[in-house]
Amino acid sequence: MSEKQIVVIPGDGIGEEITAAAVCILKKAAGKSGIQLHVERHLAGGAAIDAYGLPLPDSTIQAAKRADAILLGAVGGPKWDGVAPEIRAEKAILGLRKELGLYANLRPIRVAKALIEFSPLKPEAISGVDILLVRELNGGIYYGAKNEAAVVNGVEQASDLEIYSTPEVERIVKLACQAAQLRRKQVVSVDKANVLASSRLWRKTAQETAAQYRDVTLSHLYVDNCAMQLILAPKQFDVIVTNNLFGDILSDEAAVLTGSIGMLPSASLGDGTGLYEPIHGSAPDIAGKGLANPVGTILSAAMLLRYSLGAEEAAAAIEKAVDQVLVQGYRTADLYKPGSTKVSTEEITSLIEKQL
Amino acid sequence: MSEKQIVVIPGDGIGEEITAAAVCILKKAAGKSGIQLHVERHLAGGAAIDAYGLPLPDSTIQAAKRADAILLGAVGGPKWDGVAPEIRAEKAILGLRKELGLYANLRPIRVAKALIEFSPLKPEAISGVDILLVRELNGGIYYGAKNEAAVVNGVEQASDLEIYSTPEVERIVKLACQAAQLRRKQVVSVDKANVLASSRLWRKTAQETAAQYRDVTLSHLYVDNCAMQLILAPKQFDVIVTNNLFGDILSDEAAVLTGSIGMLPSASLGDGTGLYEPIHGSAPDIAGKGLANPVGTILSAAMLLRYSLGAEEAAAAIEKAVDQVLVQGYRTADLYKPGSTKVSTEEITSLIEKQL
Ligand SMILES: CC(C)[C@H](C(=O)O)[C@@H](O)C(=O)O
Ligand SMILES: CC(C)[C@H](C(=O)O)[C@@H](O)C(=O)O
Repeated sequence: MSEKQIVVIPGDGIGEEITAAAVCILKKAAGKSGIQLHVERHLAGGAAIDAYGLPLPDSTIQAAKRADAILLGAVGGPKWDGVAPEIRAEKAILGLRKELGLYANLRPIRVAKALIEFSPLKPEAISGVDILLVRELNGGIYYGAKNEAAVVNGVEQASDLEIYSTPEVERIVKLACQAAQLRRKQVVSVDKANVLASSRLWRKTAQETAAQYRDVTLSHLYVDNCAMQLILAPKQFDVIVTNNLFGDILSDEAAVLTGSIGMLPSASLGDGTGLYEPIHGSAPDIAGKGLANPVGTILSAAMLLRYSLGAEEAAAAIEKAVDQVLVQGYRTADLYKPGSTKVSTEEITSLIEKQL
Repeated sequence: MSEKQIVVIPGDGIGEEITAAAVCILKKAAGKSGIQLHVERHLAGGAAIDAYGLPLPDSTIQAAKRADAILLGAVGGPKWDGVAPEIRAEKAILGLRKELGLYANLRPIRVAKALIEFSPLKPEAISGVDILLVRELNGGIYYGAKNEAAVVNGVEQASDLEIYSTPEVERIVKLACQAAQLRRKQVVSVDKANVLASSRLWRKTAQETAAQYRDVTLSHLYVDNCAMQLILAPKQFDVIVTNNLFGDILSDEAAVLTGSIGMLPSASLGDGTGLYEPIHGSAPDIAGKGLANPVGTILSAAMLLRYSLGAEEAAAAIEKAVDQVLVQGYRTADLYKPGSTKVSTEEITSLIEKQL
């Protein structure tokens, strides 16, 4: 039995109940693969603001750095919308990404057959979509030099620098190519090279990097065109790789096409500890009512097993268990329609656990 | 009879045939409103590269500045993809925007009832959508300082500056609020104020500016959330105002939701001459075959009459004529389905002309 250290950051709103659900599944699946998990809870986001006056306490950062992996629920909520900009809940997310060097955000976009009717797209367009969106998460305009409103020649102005270096592009494109090798071997790199200098460096570097993966085909799309293609023909995509800002927009756009964002997981990877979280928010309005869909967090736990603990079998077992429960017609409130069986957060978790 | 000077820039690919169609409709509608048009043709894009070795000749710029309005087809195509970066066809577009001070791009997103089935969205989601997207077109990262790949401490890097000043935000938000006053009086301003300093200035300025329009309601969305909401619930939007880069992405995303981008017009306005063009590209593969849909350009001509010539009646007459021809079941190749009547570029133009 190997032992692994997991830091759980429930966060705010429904964070508590969805991470509780996912930890239960995670432990069971890991145990069956001979891994014993030690779970430590830490605060971040609004809960940390309430307790310590800041969204990302040093104790959380240190524990995160020491751990083998981190499972996060969701942070923030209207309760903390009024706090000073320096301590906003977003700072917890951005701080964790930077402190842990999480440069790659992996967002699988898939729709369970049983849920196709929830997509805003026509069924024939969405059915069979299977995209892995790889977003650069540690550079670009998110972390480039900022000038908050300053008066220049009597006029107030503010700016942000979009900046990329060759090594930053190389490492994310490598990761995208390696992921593609385990899939359909098609990488689309998204930029705005017809306008941006940083995108021209991105494109050139992507080309040179992908050339080292002879079985992988690289193509390029401008970001505006990609925003269109995702809607018109999402099935054309295998792996998409793009910068931090474009990835923020395109990953959320791609996610809603599925119609069930409560189902979608994510992984943020770097050279050290990886962080896993569902893509949805903290939904404070439904917190504590048993209405939250824990599946996005449970599938994030599966990604944790796959990428941070090397437990592919355990990961696949969770994914299969989720699928089976859906096929049996069990649905949390967000995905309920007459004809299916409505279940609570805890009930769907037990059903998934039983399938394991 | 008043006289007006129109510069027509056919551009490349199908540009020739769609501008020819639109000029014919434009002249007739203007004539009925007592306006006599003088039309002058000028080159830009690939055609200008072929003739003069550069995409935006000074003669075109000068004629454009003198004119009352400009009607443009579409520029660029694979034939010129290999030219030096300094003379790429995009330079014609970006150059015209800057030379003419076109700071506001207006993109109406509407779907004719007759064409709802072409939308990738389910009919109930798209039917009745009527959005005016207002994109800032003369600032931001498009024109901010660029550093093409330079070696810093042995590492190649490149950057672009996203920068906005208060007056730049004020004028575009004013325009959006004034447009909203003629519509449903709801403005959504889109930014990324949780991450970007320029977005924080944008949001603050938008708030202060919109406060002067007491009948207009302003709200704010982060760009990633807007990319989702456009797909999930496009009907919630009346006027959207956003910066150059976000506007590039969101306007194309919103456009494809209609399923008929051949139908969509645009206006680019500044303090002088306005420029009108369809939102689609030059489609060189179908050029000269009578397959092109001229309606996007014809509706752009209607916007030209409305915004540059103050001929609201003539504009509305064109829009009504287009609607009638669609209701009668006439369709160009891009929108043909069994049960409708397939017509060529010229045929649909004559049909629209007859309705006027
Ligand atoms: C909360 C915000 C800073 C964050 C981002 O923009 O990266 C979020 O939108 C995300 O995508 O994880
Ligand atoms: C051609 C390109 C420079 C242009 C832009 O990005 O503005 C185009 O995408 C547009 O939206 O008009």
